[in-house]
Amino acid sequence: MNEPFDFSLACPASSASNDVIELGHGGGGRLTHRLIDEIFRPAFATSPGDFTHDGAMLEPGGNGARLAFTTDSYVVRPLFFPGGDIGSLAINGTVNDLAMCGAEPLCLSVAFVMEEGLPIDDLRRIVESMQGAAARARVRIVTGDTKVVERGHGDGLYVNTSGVGLLRSRFAVGPQRVTASDVVIVSGDVGRHGVAVMAVREGLGFETEIASDCAPLAQPVLSLIEAGIDVHCLRDLTRGGLATALIEIAETADAGIELDEAAVPVSETVRGACEILGLDPLYVANEGRFVAFVPAAQAQLALACLRRFDEGAAVIGRVDGRARPRTVCIRTIGGARELDMLSGEQLPRIC
Amino acid sequence: MNEPFDFSLACPASSASNDVIELGHGGGGRLTHRLIDEIFRPAFATSPGDFTHDGAMLEPGGNGARLAFTTDSYVVRPLFFPGGDIGSLAINGTVNDLAMCGAEPLCLSVAFVMEEGLPIDDLRRIVESMQGAAARARVRIVTGDTKVVERGHGDGLYVNTSGVGLLRSRFAVGPQRVTASDVVIVSGDVGRHGVAVMAVREGLGFETEIASDCAPLAQPVLSLIEAGIDVHCLRDLTRGGLATALIEIAETADAGIELDEAAVPVSETVRGACEILGLDPLYVANEGRFVAFVPAAQAQLALACLRRFDEGAAVIGRVDGRARPRTVCIRTIGGARELDMLSGEQLPRIC
Repeated sequence: MNEPFDFSLACPASSASNDVIELGHGGGGRLTHRLIDEIFRPAFATSPGDFTHDGAMLEPGGNGARLAFTTDSYVVRPLFFPGGDIGSLAINGTVNDLAMCGAEPLCLSVAFVMEEGLPIDDLRRIVESMQGAAARARVRIVTGDTKVVERGHGDGLYVNTSGVGLLRSRFAVGPQRVTASDVVIVSGDVGRHGVAVMAVREGLGFETEIASDCAPLAQPVLSLIEAGIDVHCLRDLTRGGLATALIEIAETADAGIELDEAAVPVSETVRGACEILGLDPLYVANEGRFVAFVPAAQAQLALACLRRFDEGAAVIGRVDGRARPRTVCIRTIGGARELDMLSGEQLPRIC
Repeated sequence: MNEPFDFSLACPASSASNDVIELGHGGGGRLTHRLIDEIFRPAFATSPGDFTHDGAMLEPGGNGARLAFTTDSYVVRPLFFPGGDIGSLAINGTVNDLAMCGAEPLCLSVAFVMEEGLPIDDLRRIVESMQGAAARARVRIVTGDTKVVERGHGDGLYVNTSGVGLLRSRFAVGPQRVTASDVVIVSGDVGRHGVAVMAVREGLGFETEIASDCAPLAQPVLSLIEAGIDVHCLRDLTRGGLATALIEIAETADAGIELDEAAVPVSETVRGACEILGLDPLYVANEGRFVAFVPAAQAQLALACLRRFDEGAAVIGRVDGRARPRTVCIRTIGGARELDMLSGEQLPRIC
């Protein structure tokens, strides 16, 4: 068995310097937030709604449809992994960012940066996988771009997808709407994607193969909206996992969140793999899981909706008006502790 | 002086194999077209309007605004060049793709794939350049993404921008509307961008520094539309230059185009540099130039509009109903010849 992962890559903050980009800047944790807060947002944001988490809201023409617009680049390594590949990941990831805005995905762009020497058969497999993922997510791929870089200046293939969706929620969906009577629901068990990629990257074999949870989330989200649930906040659990997503929401909402560790669904195989790899499943990336903040009175209805798509959906916590704001506290059998956001990412190049 | 350019890179078709990606696949010529026709379009296109040249048309919600949607990744090497950098290029390039649809650019997404070790000062300069370019093009940057790849798996920085614009032309703009009474107008002199990048990449010094023409084109295009000109087709002259753009239009429109070599504006410095480098300025990439196909009766009005932005704008040819369809014939002092599309690109990594 290889070393589970290279610690110097996983914790780049330990050798932090202020003047060059480190792997941790791409991890979705504190370093990524600092880069956005210090460099990108000051330069680009022209209104408070710009550069929020998953996408931007548009009303083009002023009297037309309310739209969501989002982008993501995908640099996952390796290109193929159990349960998916960079193509299905790129489709589902952007579909899910639109869904997290409360939008129905309409169309996507795809842009390929290919390294000289990429086997055309690999490209064909990935393109077919994208086609299948788009059909399952009921989204059209309408425009694209192709660039090639010399051998040694890429890693086979990087993909960008951007997406436009039609907002279906009557009200804005976001941390600003989180209130002290909300419960936190997770749409299924956590940790599969990161462990699946890690296992194939490091050549680890587990008794039961762990497949990525990579999947489109628009249908479960739209089912909540169609059932009349007043969805306050949605967040997919990608880089940084469940813990990072909840900390981000707590900080933006200025709220205290209480999480019940025993209620968080983690499969036995993922739990076992995480123990071997020294990973905390709460921080492992998912590509087909999200949390929904909904009023406590609608929790059972929301759960019933989500269980039509995944029986693992569960209420895992609540917003606690008496808890310290801007923190996530996890209740365990032994007591309680506060969750911290990682500096970088446990696993680089996971999406 | 270095060798002007590595011929094996510039003409990858000479060592073509069918099973791996070559640099020429990113050149915008025959190899790129083949990749799109054989792999991308069959998988992704669900209607004839999909995967047309510069962007897709949307009518989200059915009763709302008519939108254009487009994407481009930028891999130019080096990141900084006279007249611009990868940041201004990424803003203007996508603004221009929207403009070529006859759309007013509304908003952009930006996505960064950064290589570990990229100096943060370089990133800051590029981000500030993007901010300036967006302000000049009157477009908002509303959402973004950040990924990091390990040292040796990138080339400092790759940028993707996608854009949404509001269609301003009452009629579709595209090759299908080209007719035998159209004239071809170019918006300014050609060849600056490619030569500028080439000169800095190869460490060439010319007596007069050649700066890229990198610039936003939405204002000149909108001025044509606002003046009531029935713009039939627009195309920016990026990878493959003027010649490739005209051949693409001739092929899609099933039309014969006649070009007057003496009328094509090329500056003396670009002409001299091209002679030294062994390049044909008709095939050199531009990032702030376009051709417009307009009815002959409106040629003078169109020219007057465009000359408010660039005095170099000129009528350079016409659609000839008697010429062989799907060809571009160039009239020179000595006679006439047919232009061919290159297999790859004279200069790789130019945008």
